Amino acid sequence: MDLRYAERMSHLKASEIREILKITQNPEVISFAGGLPAPELFPVKEIETASTAVLRRSGETALQYTTTEGYDPLREWIADRYNKRYGMHFDKDNVLIVHGSQQALDLTGKVFIDPGDVILCESPTYLAAITAFRAYGADFVGVPTDDDGMIISELRRIIKDTKRIKAIYVIPNFQNPTGRTWSMERRKELAEISAENNIVVIEDDPYGEIRFEGEDIPPVKSFDGPGNVLITGTFSKILCPGFRIGWIAGDKDAIRKYVLTKQGADLQCNTFVQMVISEFLGTNDIDHHIRKIKDVYLKRRDLAVRTMEENFPADVTFTRPSGGLFAWVTLPERMNSRDLLTKSLEENVAFVPGGSFFPDGGHENTFRINFSNMPDERITEGLERLAGVIRSYRQN
Amino acid sequence: MDLRYAERMSHLKASEIREILKITQNPEVISFAGGLPAPELFPVKEIETASTAVLRRSGETALQYTTTEGYDPLREWIADRYNKRYGMHFDKDNVLIVHGSQQALDLTGKVFIDPGDVILCESPTYLAAITAFRAYGADFVGVPTDDDGMIISELRRIIKDTKRIKAIYVIPNFQNPTGRTWSMERRKELAEISAENNIVVIEDDPYGEIRFEGEDIPPVKSFDGPGNVLITGTFSKILCPGFRIGWIAGDKDAIRKYVLTKQGADLQCNTFVQMVISEFLGTNDIDHHIRKIKDVYLKRRDLAVRTMEENFPADVTFTRPSGGLFAWVTLPERMNSRDLLTKSLEENVAFVPGGSFFPDGGHENTFRINFSNMPDERITEGLERLAGVIRSYRQN
Repeated sequence: MDLRYAERMSHLKASEIREILKITQNPEVISFAGGLPAPELFPVKEIETASTAVLRRSGETALQYTTTEGYDPLREWIADRYNKRYGMHFDKDNVLIVHGSQQALDLTGKVFIDPGDVILCESPTYLAAITAFRAYGADFVGVPTDDDGMIISELRRIIKDTKRIKAIYVIPNFQNPTGRTWSMERRKELAEISAENNIVVIEDDPYGEIRFEGEDIPPVKSFDGPGNVLITGTFSKILCPGFRIGWIAGDKDAIRKYVLTKQGADLQCNTFVQMVISEFLGTNDIDHHIRKIKDVYLKRRDLAVRTMEENFPADVTFTRPSGGLFAWVTLPERMNSRDLLTKSLEENVAFVPGGSFFPDGGHENTFRINFSNMPDERITEGLERLAGVIRSYRQN
Repeated sequence: MDLRYAERMSHLKASEIREILKITQNPEVISFAGGLPAPELFPVKEIETASTAVLRRSGETALQYTTTEGYDPLREWIADRYNKRYGMHFDKDNVLIVHGSQQALDLTGKVFIDPGDVILCESPTYLAAITAFRAYGADFVGVPTDDDGMIISELRRIIKDTKRIKAIYVIPNFQNPTGRTWSMERRKELAEISAENNIVVIEDDPYGEIRFEGEDIPPVKSFDGPGNVLITGTFSKILCPGFRIGWIAGDKDAIRKYVLTKQGADLQCNTFVQMVISEFLGTNDIDHHIRKIKDVYLKRRDLAVRTMEENFPADVTFTRPSGGLFAWVTLPERMNSRDLLTKSLEENVAFVPGGSFFPDGGHENTFRINFSNMPDERITEGLERLAGVIRSYRQN
């Protein structure tokens, strides 16, 4: 029987990334496709210790329902970390624990977006944010972006010319997919523009803790006067993604709306793993752990960049990110990265074609590579193979 | 600054239950308010063993991202259990793992509901289902219901007279809030009506495994010819709610839509606890564990019913559920259970007023009590106190 689905389902298609990830479950494939952290860095032993401690000390509490807002000591830790790193003034009521920062985007859609509202975003931007917002009827306008973030004159022009702008969605640190980072100046300007125009900023920051060279730049949120910047974060990149624990933080009234919305969506996050993370943070040095992650990712970034420099044709360009998990490759305009992927998969190498990261389409000559997940020797081997595929593709 | 929220937020208020639950975190309060399982029955030790085994054997996998569909051995176990209990023909692709069965309701809203679509539901019905569906713009029509389920002649009349009916939402086993159970005959008739009219049935079944007297009745899904019944389930009531692991099962094409929708909502459920549950199920006798739960809940149901019989005024009536977690109390019409709650909280006894379970309002003389969570002596003590409050309220 043909069930009668909601109209929004007619636009929905499988995430290209999640579908490619299925192919990459074949262990022979060298995958630059996912956004997977390096699993060998997961502190498995420490998590076992923390799990055991939580269950022995407070098993009944850990396995029971809790409040929608999340486990208070974990909310306090998150608030405190913003305060220490960036002189912010959060307490636990500025923080809602969510099911991975992806859920923060879904809840944002529900809290803010009426059908026909416009979201301004970087171009390209994070694919699954578009999916999340589109489910609530959002339209998108991509703002031209350079190596320092959105081009502010373009942003101002678009705001002047566009009706029903509801929010500006940005990933200022080590952006997915490009790996680019906003300058301090642009962050300040964005906060000002947001305040002047009463437009919410959704600052998606899953990678901010993973800067492996240069100095941390304060988030847009730290320049937010009136309280209309909301910032997301996650334990996926600094601890492990399998727990699905992230957060959204900001103005208390806004966070309260998110709490009510989460009540209807899934009641609350997993009590047990919230307590395990909190236990882990209390008994381990997370900064030491993050340094280990950064060291490995820096080495892999260097390896990836060097291999591409030495092997890719000269007219293929790529970014050199100072943090995060992704680099961005641009082929000559006449080349198509979806075709390249087909050929590349024959050589058991995967990446994500760039076109679908652009809300307005086009840019089929780009693609994203992840450098965090594969061990060193497979990075070299995979990118050498990919260079071969690019060269043979050019000759056809 | 006043942020500009989506229009749907103007209807949103805090769940009365979740707010009452906050009051009941005071350990002096005897709470019949929540839907909390008995925490002393959580198999804490066995879960510790399973957690350790999973982390030692497959720590890196357990802490990494996985597929949106869920952990395959767990999906297979769920499919297999339906097949064994009710002769169904599920395999893993009939099952999506979700973040508690509440998420199944939220995803249902996204998959099926366009603004203005009508959902038929029992009256009263599960409060948080109304919240979940309303976020997508659903309207509700309550179908008159007796002790055997929806009254079929009324259902047929409403279907004839109502435009844009998209789904029928039912809780056939030990309904929340009334504790009532649909007869086999009504289930068959509902499946037929659904097929005749091409209306989806959402069969919400969190309590079906917790029948402590009488024979199991097959789900509506088992009478579904064309494939338009979707059924939810959860580990919250048979294992523990803190894990937030439930499922939705049904027609593969429909489940595929749910999978795509979940991708955008939160990518996937917690990898680690899916594997822990699967490990627990492989190394423990879940039926033995469920029997222990049933024994305790039966004893508590008996205790609650007996205490109410002996202490409540004769014109206060209540249900005597054969399973699940809830009973339903009806006061004389002129009494108001919200007022009663105010007085009752002064005596440190909590319950949930019934009015908010009715999509059309009214019925303020009803309330819900949970009998699964409190130890035996507090059930007696709490209901005796409540009887005193009712008697003193009558005299004013």
